[in-house]
Amino acid sequence: MSVVDLNADLGESFGVWRLGDDDAMLDLVTSANIACGFHAGDPAGLLRVCHAAAERGVRIGAQVGYNDLAGFGRRYIDVSPEDLTAEVIYQIGALQALAQVAGSTVSYVKPHGALYNTIVTDHVQARAVAAAVHAVDPALPVLGLAGSAFFAAADELGLRTVPEAFADRSYRPDGQLVPRTQRNAVLHNVSTIADRVASMVTAGRVGAVDGSTIKITVKSICVHGDSPGAVDIARAVRERLTTENVQIEAFC
Amino acid sequence: MSVVDLNADLGESFGVWRLGDDDAMLDLVTSANIACGFHAGDPAGLLRVCHAAAERGVRIGAQVGYNDLAGFGRRYIDVSPEDLTAEVIYQIGALQALAQVAGSTVSYVKPHGALYNTIVTDHVQARAVAAAVHAVDPALPVLGLAGSAFFAAADELGLRTVPEAFADRSYRPDGQLVPRTQRNAVLHNVSTIADRVASMVTAGRVGAVDGSTIKITVKSICVHGDSPGAVDIARAVRERLTTENVQIEAFC
Amino acid sequence: MSVVDLNADLGESFGVWRLGDDDAMLDLVTSANIACGFHAGDPAGLLRVCHAAAERGVRIGAQVGYNDLAGFGRRYIDVSPEDLTAEVIYQIGALQALAQVAGSTVSYVKPHGALYNTIVTDHVQARAVAAAVHAVDPALPVLGLAGSAFFAAADELGLRTVPEAFADRSYRPDGQLVPRTQRNAVLHNVSTIADRVASMVTAGRVGAVDGSTIKITVKSICVHGDSPGAVDIARAVRERLTTENVQIEAFC
Amino acid sequence: MSVVDLNADLGESFGVWRLGDDDAMLDLVTSANIACGFHAGDPAGLLRVCHAAAERGVRIGAQVGYNDLAGFGRRYIDVSPEDLTAEVIYQIGALQALAQVAGSTVSYVKPHGALYNTIVTDHVQARAVAAAVHAVDPALPVLGLAGSAFFAAADELGLRTVPEAFADRSYRPDGQLVPRTQRNAVLHNVSTIADRVASMVTAGRVGAVDGSTIKITVKSICVHGDSPGAVDIARAVRERLTTENVQIEAFC
Repeated sequence: MSVVDLNADLGESFGVWRLGDDDAMLDLVTSANIACGFHAGDPAGLLRVCHAAAERGVRIGAQVGYNDLAGFGRRYIDVSPEDLTAEVIYQIGALQALAQVAGSTVSYVKPHGALYNTIVTDHVQARAVAAAVHAVDPALPVLGLAGSAFFAAADELGLRTVPEAFADRSYRPDGQLVPRTQRNAVLHNVSTIADRVASMVTAGRVGAVDGSTIKITVKSICVHGDSPGAVDIARAVRERLTTENVQIEAFC
Repeated sequence: MSVVDLNADLGESFGVWRLGDDDAMLDLVTSANIACGFHAGDPAGLLRVCHAAAERGVRIGAQVGYNDLAGFGRRYIDVSPEDLTAEVIYQIGALQALAQVAGSTVSYVKPHGALYNTIVTDHVQARAVAAAVHAVDPALPVLGLAGSAFFAAADELGLRTVPEAFADRSYRPDGQLVPRTQRNAVLHNVSTIADRVASMVTAGRVGAVDGSTIKITVKSICVHGDSPGAVDIARAVRERLTTENVQIEAFC
Repeated sequence: MSVVDLNADLGESFGVWRLGDDDAMLDLVTSANIACGFHAGDPAGLLRVCHAAAERGVRIGAQVGYNDLAGFGRRYIDVSPEDLTAEVIYQIGALQALAQVAGSTVSYVKPHGALYNTIVTDHVQARAVAAAVHAVDPALPVLGLAGSAFFAAADELGLRTVPEAFADRSYRPDGQLVPRTQRNAVLHNVSTIADRVASMVTAGRVGAVDGSTIKITVKSICVHGDSPGAVDIARAVRERLTTENVQIEAFC
Repeated sequence: MSVVDLNADLGESFGVWRLGDDDAMLDLVTSANIACGFHAGDPAGLLRVCHAAAERGVRIGAQVGYNDLAGFGRRYIDVSPEDLTAEVIYQIGALQALAQVAGSTVSYVKPHGALYNTIVTDHVQARAVAAAVHAVDPALPVLGLAGSAFFAAADELGLRTVPEAFADRSYRPDGQLVPRTQRNAVLHNVSTIADRVASMVTAGRVGAVDGSTIKITVKSICVHGDSPGAVDIARAVRERLTTENVQIEAFC
């Protein structure tokens, strides 16, 4: 029987501004990528979502990002590796304390947004992030893209890497994501998304934008928490996987 | 023989902007109140000062403050206790990770600036800060002002309180600090400052602004790191205490 | 025939985070209090709402606030008058440029949130805000609360003051607003709100929380843009006023 | 007789943190590139330096930058052109109000740091900045690098371009600056710097790092305000130019 983890980005509100339905998503996922205050998330809101995750037994991961609230961490910043390493350590530590106060712990690290995308190919920033995770705790796994510079850097340091796929994103034939700047980057049809996820998890395959079929190895599926219909998509993915006898549980 | 700790505020640079001579101060003090990024301190700079403290065996404390870089944490903010508690947890956690990466740990917590002053009398914010420290680690001592609302709140939670005195600040007859807005709030004469500190530590007394002498119980002396002549003052205090056979070591 | 202005707080999104339905509100109000980036509003979003206001002929006001995105400007900050004056000048100027690029101009100034509330009674901050407005342009009117310290300071400088009332807020017998921290501070019933506004504008009276009736002089009615049902309330107010033969137009 | 303008970056302190000696530099330059709060500069500090510039008859320019206090605007940010245009409009407007209150006006615009460097070659961001300046005031000249994408974009919009050279920076044979990441990017010898500036202004030539001599057209010389010895360098440049009978006055 197949086993897969479901992860979503949570805790991405800020102050008076709300984003996503964290409570609904926490009923559906097994791993919560919780923001750390640099691209989103104020301390009180982060503590609340840590409590909510802990109460449901959903595992907490540190969703680290560029220091850019105005851009929601979605803009590349040419930050030095020294600064980036320290910023990632800082973010993980901040969330560790909040998670611990909520009766849980930070169980993994997942980069966010432009940082995630940058370290698919940028070895300098990739090493800076991996070094930060390793410095905080060499036993912390990292969630990311198989074949990325980030995973290469993590491998070198002996960090465990957990490859994920995206439920609602289109893939290029080379296995990379179609950039958000392109029209067909994001899928919206709930049924199509559920089909694709089932195929990824049970068959290790998914259709690329050019019509070809690519192989994909996946231990976790990322369902977005902030898109319109996010909750519906997550629920449909979960139901389809259950129908396919896939066991949904946190990766280990 | 008397024993006293010397503490100073460090890590208060931000990005390109420098403040104080952290390296020189670390050669003189036994406890470093290191900023946590809310009133000052960027992650890379904080990591550097954590390394420098760890190398010298100077203990690290989390200098938590209001979220106000523009005001350097020196302006009262009417933040809700829920927000304040979470902000203090966040700051302690962030510094814990940096300190741990530097081979040290956060050994105590000291509020900064307007937060320090506010919780001398404001019981709501005092409880919010004490609750944060307790939630992170009930064994973390807090550094502050004897008789403050903060110490009362810490006492209630069973936190250890370490009373400090200020080397270069004037005291009112009631034992509180003369506010910085008054002209005679800060002392500048190095010799006078050293005399006063020696009297506080060895005799438990200090002269107040009205000419009276007040009793003072002190386990740590705060020497400011960012004032002009800070290093000279810290050195003079240290030399005078040594002359008086006071042992300078971290409080325990 | 009575004449009244309708104003609402707009442009209060930030980056990825949305707040309120600016376009819908712009179809209903005559004056748009547009945020200036200190409590809310990123430049591109502010420029968009300036364009939208200009297209509809809705007048633009600078909604100046404390420098506190995390608190949405709703927390008192003990900022010095020198800093506050410069911050208000800065905010007005920033919005002036955006408004001008959009083909409009900043026609008045209205303080936001905690700053608004503080300068009802705090004469130092009130004078700091009034001085800023006066320094930028002595012909700029200010929107605020009749009888406030702010209006007193504005009067002294010869600024024109435009008294406003709040459609959905409860009043104390002394004419001040019931603080938001109290349960009955905000009204939600659309019909009740419309009744009260009609009474304020046509009869100069409104019921206070203790059941008494108080006199109120009002040239503008503030309808909130960010509360649930904001658009419905604004529409109901507008319709009721029209029914009562009140002319809705920008104050002059 | 030759005529040249001397410009320097000023107003780059932030809150409690000081940078550079603005008063000393204002006695030496004819144009002050004053920060606008995005990479440096708090409103009260900016207002003070606007006053100081106005008192001395030194012209004020808006030194616009990326929204990045932590990086002092020295890190490339992949900001969208829509956001960048609005951010530049916002910054110019903010400084216009401060300058006007100080009895002066914003007379030109000069990009700062990584933005300056980026728009030497990045046509998208270059057009975004030029469009912002043009939208605020088509009569505002821009200060920058001859041959840059920024000047091309400014030319297209009919903005006046004022080419500058850097007193203390090394040039490559192609006329571009040696990047700061290289060891020989910045010159420190006061006499060498003064010689080079004299050659640039009177002969239109300067030595490149490879020993060749390149042509350079310059209407303004940038002397850095924040480097060690900045004031000495500016004074030496000024004295040498005077000795060479160069008239130092604001460009027109």
